[in-house]
Amino acid sequence: MAYKKIAQDFLNKSNISIGDLVKVEKGEIQYNGILLDRSEDAEDNHIVLKIDNGYNIGLNISNAKIELIKKGSKPEIKYDNVEIVNDPEKDNILIISTGGTVSSIIDYKTGAVHPVFTASDLLKANSELLDLANIDVKALYNILSENMKPEYWVNTAKSIADEINNGVDGVVVAHGTDTMHYTSAALSFMLESPVPIVITGAQRSSDRPSTDAFLNLMNSVGAAKSNIAEVTVCMHGTLDDVYCDLHRGTKVRKMHTSRRDTFRSIDNEPIARFKNGELSSINTNNYTKRNSKELKLSDNLESKVAIIKTFPGITEELINYHVDKGYKGLLIEGTGLGHIPDYMLNAIKRANEENIAIVMTSQCIYGTLNMNVYSTGRKLLNAGVISGGDMTPETAYVKLCWALGQSENLNDVTNIITTNIAGELNEKSSLKYFLN
Amino acid sequence: MAYKKIAQDFLNKSNISIGDLVKVEKGEIQYNGILLDRSEDAEDNHIVLKIDNGYNIGLNISNAKIELIKKGSKPEIKYDNVEIVNDPEKDNILIISTGGTVSSIIDYKTGAVHPVFTASDLLKANSELLDLANIDVKALYNILSENMKPEYWVNTAKSIADEINNGVDGVVVAHGTDTMHYTSAALSFMLESPVPIVITGAQRSSDRPSTDAFLNLMNSVGAAKSNIAEVTVCMHGTLDDVYCDLHRGTKVRKMHTSRRDTFRSIDNEPIARFKNGELSSINTNNYTKRNSKELKLSDNLESKVAIIKTFPGITEELINYHVDKGYKGLLIEGTGLGHIPDYMLNAIKRANEENIAIVMTSQCIYGTLNMNVYSTGRKLLNAGVISGGDMTPETAYVKLCWALGQSENLNDVTNIITTNIAGELNEKSSLKYFLN
Repeated sequence: MAYKKIAQDFLNKSNISIGDLVKVEKGEIQYNGILLDRSEDAEDNHIVLKIDNGYNIGLNISNAKIELIKKGSKPEIKYDNVEIVNDPEKDNILIISTGGTVSSIIDYKTGAVHPVFTASDLLKANSELLDLANIDVKALYNILSENMKPEYWVNTAKSIADEINNGVDGVVVAHGTDTMHYTSAALSFMLESPVPIVITGAQRSSDRPSTDAFLNLMNSVGAAKSNIAEVTVCMHGTLDDVYCDLHRGTKVRKMHTSRRDTFRSIDNEPIARFKNGELSSINTNNYTKRNSKELKLSDNLESKVAIIKTFPGITEELINYHVDKGYKGLLIEGTGLGHIPDYMLNAIKRANEENIAIVMTSQCIYGTLNMNVYSTGRKLLNAGVISGGDMTPETAYVKLCWALGQSENLNDVTNIITTNIAGELNEKSSLKYFLN
Repeated sequence: MAYKKIAQDFLNKSNISIGDLVKVEKGEIQYNGILLDRSEDAEDNHIVLKIDNGYNIGLNISNAKIELIKKGSKPEIKYDNVEIVNDPEKDNILIISTGGTVSSIIDYKTGAVHPVFTASDLLKANSELLDLANIDVKALYNILSENMKPEYWVNTAKSIADEINNGVDGVVVAHGTDTMHYTSAALSFMLESPVPIVITGAQRSSDRPSTDAFLNLMNSVGAAKSNIAEVTVCMHGTLDDVYCDLHRGTKVRKMHTSRRDTFRSIDNEPIARFKNGELSSINTNNYTKRNSKELKLSDNLESKVAIIKTFPGITEELINYHVDKGYKGLLIEGTGLGHIPDYMLNAIKRANEENIAIVMTSQCIYGTLNMNVYSTGRKLLNAGVISGGDMTPETAYVKLCWALGQSENLNDVTNIITTNIAGELNEKSSLKYFLN
């Protein structure tokens, strides 16, 4: 692809070519960025700029002025041959790629994001990782994480289990960020592992100036080599490229649409901090240490589970719909300490009578439920609703899928939901870890 | 009500009576608190303690040890006669009570929370408010805010409009905290007011040692006297009883189940800070000033609107269900920059073809959407989905109800959703106001 007549004329007049840093003025707005080749979607009178925040934008050139700031060398990914020689002194770390921005690079010819499929591709883009460990890469999926499904969690857990049983010293899962915290919760419940399982991703692809992929991958490999044998999420701790925080997989959430430090521990502190691929500080001794126990895989999940968020105006018909459709579990995102409108109570009772597990959480995100304070909460408990304690709605949803995979008996399910399995429930809730 | 045989014997042995500060030990757990009279729900072998965090708990006394810490004077609400004499030098502020914890007091006889219905009751409990302004109180509703409905928003808006048209200098709405931010958004869209409309509430009722009701009411009256003629939420700024933050009604959210400083501005800073019933600092000049324009009430709302939160495992049947049920609008809480699974696209297209307005927001809570970055977002835009920009899901839901009340034409609705009406859309999104 290349720019066509109108755009090409516009660029030629100012002697500008692809890869140059330019300033475009349109009306009162000014854009600075690197000129990319036109994307598939671009119309003939549009040019495509990679702007400072790392995103690509299309600009209509009518009434626009363009000015060269600096001639650019067209950025290129170096595809040198990386020779991979295993060093017996180093840990063996497996990177499992499921897709997402972290395992993608931008094609500067088209502006489109392409997946990096093979081990050698990912290592070519991040060859410094080989200084840290012997690294093998497996491409399991290549999907954007909004398309993740419970069945993919199961396959991912099985693949990880196989590799750990075969002797790897730690696993890094490269994953899209949109639903990373759902997957980290799912792997937390399905896997009891003697070695670390670290999930990471990126908010900007590898070849963007603002990419977070390399820092996240490097520190994830560090975490996978560490003594922290839990399922964790390792992502940027700040807006800067300084360190990553390591979050417990059941207590973490994507809290910002675009910031690199979007992942935050909820009602909890991060377990540790990693810098330059090494442990930099540890916040707690309360984690599972690397051990020689046999890996335990519990990969039965019930997928007939739905999330219902309450709101002023919700109707009880929505509960009835899910009951009629044969759902086995409902995760309710209530308000405050765990409430829904009182006119929903009959539908809740009916669902309970039909043996459907109903778990309450709060759309406040932070803080623990207390369904004993107000009459609404007490009535819901009496109707059989199970309190999700201080679990995030997302973790509680995943746990409900998993609990229903372990037993169809409502008492068993209640016991599982209210028992801490993988750090998801704080016995004593603290007000301390709010918005941190 | 009074304690019966088993519990009474237990208390008599240690010479403990209602109102005393006691220590109860059960196994390894120790509770300190004030002994309340038994609540309705308490069984004969239970006692009820008001513990330090302000909540009441029931304790089974079997195997428990009780010890007197301090004889208590039974706490009582002072029901002195408050003589209300209007001072022509002072502003006239109306408090409209809709229910919730802020307009309740605990009955120390039963431990139950009772609503304060009349003007004189509320003023008796908070008589210092009369130093700040001439205060009138109207009880409009007495409901827990999880039971709020769009039709109550409309009635509240009408009542406020009447009072402002009758000449009050400012309005304070006392409201439950669970859905306060939905109501503040609704009033923001329905009312263009020449004077302040301040919504407040409490996380602990007036007579608890840890109550936040008085500080919130006092500073709300201060805000209602101020120059900030917007719909705002005025609540504790910290865990301490020091000051309140004044949040724009469309940019605020309950972010913690129990903290007093639970309300936080999202992607925004609070407009101002109030201390001792007076303006203490102002963060921006970007607000509507008190003026003499005529109040504008636009109170048409469409209530056939639903919130759908996406999750791994969601089915397109859920969209079809809402279409078949005659919904006019769907607010989707997507992932990341504004995504849902790609297999939902056909159902979305069908909904759009049937003239249903579909607005996208993000379950990240913070940050703005950008549906142009990834293919999923572009496909959704092509299918007619409207980007909610940096609106919270709750504000966008309310705005969609309101937009559909203004017009049934999808182009009009799209224009309304994407145009800033009441400070809900930041034209230039900033990464700055994250978790503040």
